[in-house]
Amino acid sequence: MRFITDKDNLLHALQLVQRAVSPRNPMPILSGVKFEASKDRLFLSATDLNIGIQCSLPVEVLNPGTAVLPARYIIDLVRRLPYLPVVIESDEITDNVKIKYGQSEAVINGFPEEEFPEVSLSESEISLNISEDILKDIVRQVVFAASNDENRPIYNGVLFEIHGKQITAVATDTHRLAWRSFSIENYENIDIKLIIPGKTLNDLVRIIGNSGNNIKIAANSKKVFFISDNIFLISRLIDGQFPNYQMAVPKEYTTKVKLKTKDLEEAAERAALLEKDGAPSIKLHLEGNVILLTVNTEAGRLCEEIPVNYEGEEIQIAFNARYLSEALKAAGSEEVSIDFAGPLSPGIIRPAGNNEYFSLILPVRLKG
Amino acid sequence: MRFITDKDNLLHALQLVQRAVSPRNPMPILSGVKFEASKDRLFLSATDLNIGIQCSLPVEVLNPGTAVLPARYIIDLVRRLPYLPVVIESDEITDNVKIKYGQSEAVINGFPEEEFPEVSLSESEISLNISEDILKDIVRQVVFAASNDENRPIYNGVLFEIHGKQITAVATDTHRLAWRSFSIENYENIDIKLIIPGKTLNDLVRIIGNSGNNIKIAANSKKVFFISDNIFLISRLIDGQFPNYQMAVPKEYTTKVKLKTKDLEEAAERAALLEKDGAPSIKLHLEGNVILLTVNTEAGRLCEEIPVNYEGEEIQIAFNARYLSEALKAAGSEEVSIDFAGPLSPGIIRPAGNNEYFSLILPVRLKG
Repeated sequence: MRFITDKDNLLHALQLVQRAVSPRNPMPILSGVKFEASKDRLFLSATDLNIGIQCSLPVEVLNPGTAVLPARYIIDLVRRLPYLPVVIESDEITDNVKIKYGQSEAVINGFPEEEFPEVSLSESEISLNISEDILKDIVRQVVFAASNDENRPIYNGVLFEIHGKQITAVATDTHRLAWRSFSIENYENIDIKLIIPGKTLNDLVRIIGNSGNNIKIAANSKKVFFISDNIFLISRLIDGQFPNYQMAVPKEYTTKVKLKTKDLEEAAERAALLEKDGAPSIKLHLEGNVILLTVNTEAGRLCEEIPVNYEGEEIQIAFNARYLSEALKAAGSEEVSIDFAGPLSPGIIRPAGNNEYFSLILPVRLKG
Repeated sequence: MRFITDKDNLLHALQLVQRAVSPRNPMPILSGVKFEASKDRLFLSATDLNIGIQCSLPVEVLNPGTAVLPARYIIDLVRRLPYLPVVIESDEITDNVKIKYGQSEAVINGFPEEEFPEVSLSESEISLNISEDILKDIVRQVVFAASNDENRPIYNGVLFEIHGKQITAVATDTHRLAWRSFSIENYENIDIKLIIPGKTLNDLVRIIGNSGNNIKIAANSKKVFFISDNIFLISRLIDGQFPNYQMAVPKEYTTKVKLKTKDLEEAAERAALLEKDGAPSIKLHLEGNVILLTVNTEAGRLCEEIPVNYEGEEIQIAFNARYLSEALKAAGSEEVSIDFAGPLSPGIIRPAGNNEYFSLILPVRLKG
């Protein structure tokens, strides 16, 4: 392998694939980045066996070939190279790679490239296109409700239910739930459920661009693939039965409230600060045209008044302060409506006038 | 205590004193910030018993008084307050403090204020004024050479030797040394040595402004005080005999080199990246009009050529890569001169044409 590139393009691509590097894995080769020079492009890949990322960039290839270098050394070195053309060449016998810049050169000891796991597309059952912007929006609005508890993997994922051109994305950690529906334009007649790890989606939105281009999603029963112009991400899917979340959504409401999102979101954030052994519970007391928000912990108390419009019955209900502030933030709208079905039923938060998104929070039982 | 203030001024002052807060101290009160409203100012203080910081700001005092609040809660709360006038009042019986903003209020449970250690000036033997800019420069150029090893406290400090208007500041961790001399204008006829903890100086330069104003330094045999318009910092001094560092400085040199600081600094930074169990040694080989820099570790190798002007003998010498890059950075000049007295003697680095500063690095013994 031998090619000529420049510092900035190479560094940018390395930083994208770095997200899949597994520096402390028992398999040392997973701390590496695979370089593959072919025709007029360099392909960089990294994988932790859960996800794999491949990124390509144009370079001047003098000799095609491959090499695997420890991510840590090559990324730090490229970051500190001077702004000169960089010639990178591998020694096929020793696995070492020489990086030449001006009159100087570094040699980094590599890994045997044949041990590096394949990061490539395998046969897919479905394929669809979705705008990068919508994908980012879904991840922002839904993934926060997924769990990080590795003992219950099904709750770490986001369920994508695809029926023709209609898609819903749902995540829940059993204390709260977020649901988003949207439609796509170029579809095949498919009907499938995929449970994609929340971490995969978070990684994906951090590496895709801001161009508003479409990204292609392909999948089989084990894996999902995200394909854009120069980035390819592969991830395992989560196996199992997603809980029947529809049962958790109340069918009728006793109270409907409308308020400025920021008023309640900021109050909930202040309330969450009084944390002492876990996030505090916020008591909401709706009466007249205000919500009276109160919190009481060993650290202190908070009492705020928030103006609202409401229809229906007065209500007293309590929520986890952090869950409430995160749900309001995810709504992403100036005004939200909150629907209640009594103090023991979940509250449903929607961006005002928007039926394509909601999140749900289970209440905390009030003491005394 | 009762006063009116605004969010931004209060937050700024809290963030300055926060540096002295000791959140995990066995004495819980040291996780607090003391509020003292007096005349038309609020005085905030924090201390970890090694250093203490006091900061004052103008507020509208309605009732003078004091209170001590947990730093964590009050700082996070003030950061998230809306932009409204803030009324803060203490309940002298319960130690609790009420923070009112608009129609809302928070109460934070405080500490008994009488348990909070005094943060105040005590009798001083010396007093001098120094420009904030010079102080920042000294700290940048000297403190990096001090040690962080708490088992050898004398090496954690910077020795200030004051003879009339002439001051020298020196730090060493026994592997390297940095020395700076400067003169002050308004001086008393004093002759004293102070060993100020490096951490104190780092904290100090982070809280003083960029105004170029003078700061007053006062001291007795136990403590040093830094006094500016609205900030007061007190620190213990380090007790003991500073090593006789002059012995370490060679009197004669066999080789004098002059080069662009950046060339060698960046090469040394790249070399330091090849770290594997500690920073690698850089071998410098001076011959002809270049320094040939080579590094060889288990991670890889580096070989760079740096153009230099030199007088005297050719030399081969090796240094710790990180010490070399830090010393070159501290020089802070476009060109440096490096003086050598043979491969077993320290190298002396000076900003070109500047006799007020040098740093010294002991060589590493070359293998083979």
